[in-house]
Order: sequence, then C-alpha cells, then structure tokens
Amino acid sequence: METSPVHRSSHLRMTATEVRRLIDADEETLERYVSSLLERYQERDRDIKAWAHIEPDRALRQARLLDRIPRERRGPLHGFVIGVKDAILTEGKTTTTEFTATFEGPGTRNPHDTSRTPGGSSSGSAAAVADMQVPIALCTQTVGSTIRPASFTGVYAFKPTWNAISPEGQKMSSLTLDTFAVMARSIADLQQVGKVLGLRDDEPPRQIPLTEATFAFVKSPIWPSAGPGTVAALQRAAKILTKAGAHVVEVTLPHEFDDIISLQNEILEAEIGVAFHREYSTSREQISDYLASIAQTAHTGSKKAYVRALDKIAALRPKMDEIADRYTAIVTPSAIDVAPKGAGTGSSDFNAMWTALHMPVINVPGFKGEDDMPVGLSLVTSRFRDEHLLQVARQVGGLFAAKGGDI
Amino acid sequence: METSPVHRSSHLRMTATEVRRLIDADEETLERYVSSLLERYQERDRDIKAWAHIEPDRALRQARLLDRIPRERRGPLHGFVIGVKDAILTEGKTTTTEFTATFEGPGTRNPHDTSRTPGGSSSGSAAAVADMQVPIALCTQTVGSTIRPASFTGVYAFKPTWNAISPEGQKMSSLTLDTFAVMARSIADLQQVGKVLGLRDDEPPRQIPLTEATFAFVKSPIWPSAGPGTVAALQRAAKILTKAGAHVVEVTLPHEFDDIISLQNEILEAEIGVAFHREYSTSREQISDYLASIAQTAHTGSKKAYVRALDKIAALRPKMDEIADRYTAIVTPSAIDVAPKGAGTGSSDFNAMWTALHMPVINVPGFKGEDDMPVGLSLVTSRFRDEHLLQVARQVGGLFAAKGGDI
Repeated sequence: METSPVHRSSHLRMTATEVRRLIDADEETLERYVSSLLERYQERDRDIKAWAHIEPDRALRQARLLDRIPRERRGPLHGFVIGVKDAILTEGKTTTTEFTATFEGPGTRNPHDTSRTPGGSSSGSAAAVADMQVPIALCTQTVGSTIRPASFTGVYAFKPTWNAISPEGQKMSSLTLDTFAVMARSIADLQQVGKVLGLRDDEPPRQIPLTEATFAFVKSPIWPSAGPGTVAALQRAAKILTKAGAHVVEVTLPHEFDDIISLQNEILEAEIGVAFHREYSTSREQISDYLASIAQTAHTGSKKAYVRALDKIAALRPKMDEIADRYTAIVTPSAIDVAPKGAGTGSSDFNAMWTALHMPVINVPGFKGEDDMPVGLSLVTSRFRDEHLLQVARQVGGLFAAKGGDI
Repeated sequence: METSPVHRSSHLRMTATEVRRLIDADEETLERYVSSLLERYQERDRDIKAWAHIEPDRALRQARLLDRIPRERRGPLHGFVIGVKDAILTEGKTTTTEFTATFEGPGTRNPHDTSRTPGGSSSGSAAAVADMQVPIALCTQTVGSTIRPASFTGVYAFKPTWNAISPEGQKMSSLTLDTFAVMARSIADLQQVGKVLGLRDDEPPRQIPLTEATFAFVKSPIWPSAGPGTVAALQRAAKILTKAGAHVVEVTLPHEFDDIISLQNEILEAEIGVAFHREYSTSREQISDYLASIAQTAHTGSKKAYVRALDKIAALRPKMDEIADRYTAIVTPSAIDVAPKGAGTGSSDFNAMWTALHMPVINVPGFKGEDDMPVGLSLVTSRFRDEHLLQVARQVGGLFAAKGGDI
C-alpha cells in the first residue's frame, strides 16, 4: 500500500486526535495512515534507531482489522498509534537504556541533529515521536527519563502524579520514584490517553483565562547549572505570559528544599539495589558493570539513611503542594540546556525534585537554543491536579509554539 | 516412585533446611522427597484445595534433574520446595482470593478443621504449608493477607519491611501497601529465603539473651475486638517470656495512632481503584461485582483525602520506628481469634497498622484457642530490622512452640 508523498507528509504531522477525526469522517483509513508511518520508519531508522522491536506486517494487519470496526463500536483510542517504551510489558517497542536505569544507550539519535542524544532513558519514545514515526509513545520516568528527552527533541511529555496510573507491567527501577508517562505532539492527544488510563482530578478542570492566571517561576536550587538555552527560554516564557495578561512571579523555595536532590539520589540508589537484586544475583553476566556496581553499592548502603531520606521527602510533599496550590502552575526548567552531543543522555538534575515530590509535570516545547535545537519548559502543579495541568499546558503550549521561537 | 509411609511422614514434617541437609549428606534424594509431597497433595487436595495450578510430572522431572547437580554447584535454595501464591508471575501456584483484593474465595480450607477458612488472601499458601504439602510458600500482604492466614493455620509467616524485597511480578492491589511475604514451618527456612532475596540489616543480627530482652506488648487501638483465643495467647506469651527472664512491658500507643486503620483504609480504597482500573475498564464482565464496585468507588473518591491519608501515615512511620527501637520487639495480636467458620476469610484489623507503617512482622505460632484451633502472635520491629526480627522470632518461636499450648 503506497501513499502519495503529499498525503504522507500530512499524515506524519497529524496528532492522533486529528487522525481519529479523519477516520471517523471516512476521509482516511487506518491502513493508509499506518502505511505512512511505516514508510517513515523504514526511511529513517538507519539514522534514528528509535525502535527495539517492530513488526510492520503485523501492524498493517491490525490496521486492516481495525478499519472494519463500525464507527459506533470504536474504542476511545481507535486510530491512536502508540509506541511503547521497552520497559513496559507488551510487543512492538521503542528503545531505552539498560533497564531504564543506566546510561548504557541503544544508540538512538536526536532527529533534530543526529550527532546529539535524544535524551534518556525514554530515548526511542522521544526520537520516534519527534521524528513523526508515531504520534504518541508510552514512557517511564524515575528521575528525568521522560521530561528531559521531550525537551531535547521538542515534543510534549506528561509525567502524571505518582501512582495516578498503575505502574503494573513496568520494569521497576525505584518503587517510590518510577512513574508511568506519555509523550505526544499535542496536549489533546495526552488528554485522551490520560482519560482512558483513568486520570481524574477532584474538580473538573476549567479553562482559566490567562488574565486570571498566576505563574510561579521557580529556578530551583540548581539554577546556577542552567545553560544559555534554558536561561533564555525561561526569560522568554515570562515575557510571553506577561504579554498575554498573566501574572508572573519569581518564587524562591524555602531552604528545606535545598538538599532534595541528594535525598532523591539516596532513595534512588537504595531502591535500584532492591529492584535489580534479582538480575545482580542470578544474571550478573548479562548486566553492565555499571548497573552491577550500583546494585552492589545499594546492597551495602545504609538502610537507616535510606529510610531517613524517604521520610524527609514524604514530609516535603504536602509542603510543596501547598506552595504549588497558590499558583495556576509552576514554570521551571526541563533540562540544563539543549541536547548535548556525544554518547551520554544528558543530566536530569532539573527533573529530580518534581519526580521525588510525586507532582505532575508537563514538558511544553516551543523554544530554541544553540544550533536551533529545541528547549522545553516544565509546568508543574500539586499532586492529583493532572487534568488541571493538561488544561493549562494546552493554553500555554499554543502561546509558546507561536512565540517561543522568536528569540 | 513410592516411599514407605514412615519415611513419607518424616518427609512431610521436615523443614526445607532439614531436607537440604539430608540431600547434601546423600541420605535423601529430591526425587523421593518431592514424591512424598505430591502423594500428600493427591490425598488431601479434595479436602484442602490449596492449589490453583500444579504439574506433578513436571515437578518430578525437575527434581530428577536437580538431583544430578553435584553438591558444590548447588544453589542456596537447592532442595527448597516452594509454593507460589497465584498473584506472582510464575507457574505452579497456590490459591488466592480474586486478585488478592476481595473475599471471593477459592474454597480453600483450613487443614485443622475443614469447616473453617485458612484465612486470605494467601489462602492456598497457608493451607499447603500447614497441611505439609510443601514446606514454604510465597505470599503477598496488602492488609493482613499473610500474617492472618498464618495465625489461622499455625505456621510461621514473615512480612518483611515494605520494599525490602522488590514487588516486581506481583499482581498489584495497592502500591504503597502491597508487600512480598513468605510462609514456612521454621524460622531457619524463612532466614534462608530472606537471605537469597537480598534482606540485609544495617547491623548483622546478634542473638540477644532473653534476660537482656524487653518486649513491648501493644494491644493496639482495636484491642476491644480481640476474642478469647487471642486474649489468652497474649497473656500466656507474657508469662512465658517473663519466666524465661525477659522484661515485658505493656505499651499504650500515643493517640495520634488512633485513626490509623481508617487512614489505611482510605489509602487502600484509592489505590485499589488505580490498580484495577484496567480490569474495570476493559474486562468488567470478568471481575466480581464487589471488585467492580470498589474500583468504581475509588475512581470517584476524593484524591485530596487520599493524599492527606498518605502524608499522615508517612509522618507516623518514623514515630513508630522510634517507639519500636526502644524494645527488642513488639508483641501484638495476629488476628482477632481462631479461624472463623464459614465463607469469609476473617478480619485483618489487627494487621492493618503494621502493614501501613511498612514495618516487618512475623507471625509466631504456638497457641491454641477454641476447638484446639491455632492462634499466633505477631512480632514487630522498626523498618529494615528484618534480620533482627527473624533472629528474635527464632528464640521466641521455640519457647512458644514448647509452652504455648499449655493453656
């Protein structure tokens, strides 16, 4: 099945929500759409390497079967083609680093510049969505494994509140940090996936006019490490939001949050040891030396220090919720700067705090840094205001996309 | 392969540690031992119904293969025959209630009196270990799913600190409560399994002479619901320990722990909703009305109340650790009374607090209640003192076994 180049190019740019609309209007078939995606994959895979496993024939067969389902019997995700990170139980997967836990990369590349990383550990998910090989991908985040690659590749990413969506079926790295997450090229797609996965705020989200909105700009305790792309994006975002009529305030966090990254790290190291004890003790020869050394260190680390870190962060969660609840959303960096060149997957320091605090985070793309590479910013709010945050990101996302590039 | 009745009866009573010793001394083969267990299973299964899935031929084949491994290459659990609760990824399983989450029972019976429940949700694990169909079984506990059935069937059970052992591969009910657990007929067996699964205290456990030990008897906020079997067991235990030279003090908990059961319940209801959202939204017709109604309620429940309960219990954890650290161990009821008759699996009210506080708990059998039915008591200590608790249980267990029955 071939599609015309023009047709195909419009296919690739579409969000899943748009595809669904065309299919329901009998203006498109899933088979033709999937063919376009597969052609894109075949053209680009040598450069991007986003996939750990893919079965083109099977995908087409499924598309044909789904095309036969009458409109009134189609499910809420009919027409949504979703890549799945190779850390979640299923078949047909995007790449990740070793068990999501290390930097041992799959060699996946950033579609904006193949000499750069797409970030990690959700490397393949970010690359496939950014490269228009698929409109949506499922991810996981333990520190910054979804928000950072989304910033590096210029796509939306949504890390919901911890345990708002069951982590069952994920390979675990860290029980109290691992969070199920999603990437897409539109907030509408993220909203639809979130709805199907059971997200629900206590109060239905309402559209807040930007003139009634207040955004807290939080530079976080590690602000001095921010690079020029991130610094400029944050300044630009403040101007865009102010111009749109929103209140923008700079908020300095109380000192009790100062050591949160080291606390988070203490938890991560201990929990990685628990999560990989099986691999370490039964399959040492199949894991990297790096992972083995983490597992070993964790096993001999102090449990008392781990428990103290757990309890301290648990006590900080309601405090940060209280701060976040004073504002429409927090705006804060998604990464140190644009995607770095070379073998690593970049630093997740700016993501660590929000993951540890279990708060929902959305990467909103729209800015550019060095060499025109993408830079995103994080919107954050208190726990279980996921639908609210998606709603805010939908408004802000449009502004950033329209005006973020004019640096 | 047949074994003589005398031989077989001694097989069945053996702990896994004892079996291993015989095998390593060339005095027994795993094949003969497994044959004895399978004969026991075949004789008793009609009455006890402990197994969801079992493959006798395959078990024998595996035993023969294992017998060929030379002594120096045998693993640390060689010769350990372990039943696995049907909520953990594997093959060959003991029964449980629906997804461990409801009281929809598998019809498993208490080997001490088949008109009574073995408790739940680890029904089959408790029944199989108590009925000598297997020396060890893997379990899970969300509220009281391991400690209570162990008390009802007169076996040891060990619920380690939450996340001391990875819950990966368990069917989840409640992310912050679900705990991997183990049952056996000896503490030595639990110690060996714990060691292989990676348990390690900060300080190596040392044998504390009972004359230097202090036990805190905690009746817990729901003490008025305790039945005569549990009341008598607690009194008897205090006498036995005092006579052995230990200090015994009665400890009343501060009032801040008064509402912990309702907080725990609030968490459980919300998290069950998340854990079963998939089953509820995609396979409603395959789950019970009861589970569906819980999932539905959770989905409409207040997230704010859930988060408040999470934060409150998180704040209580270090406080209870501090109390526990003043004593060698806490002694507290494992169940309201002996196993009840009829269809239910009994109340887990006495277990809820310790599970929610993530503390290690061991059920120590040895007492008898109405109709000579078993009654156990729980030993509890602060988080990540698992090896210490096993060591204490080993000393106390011998005393309770020798003297608990003399009521």
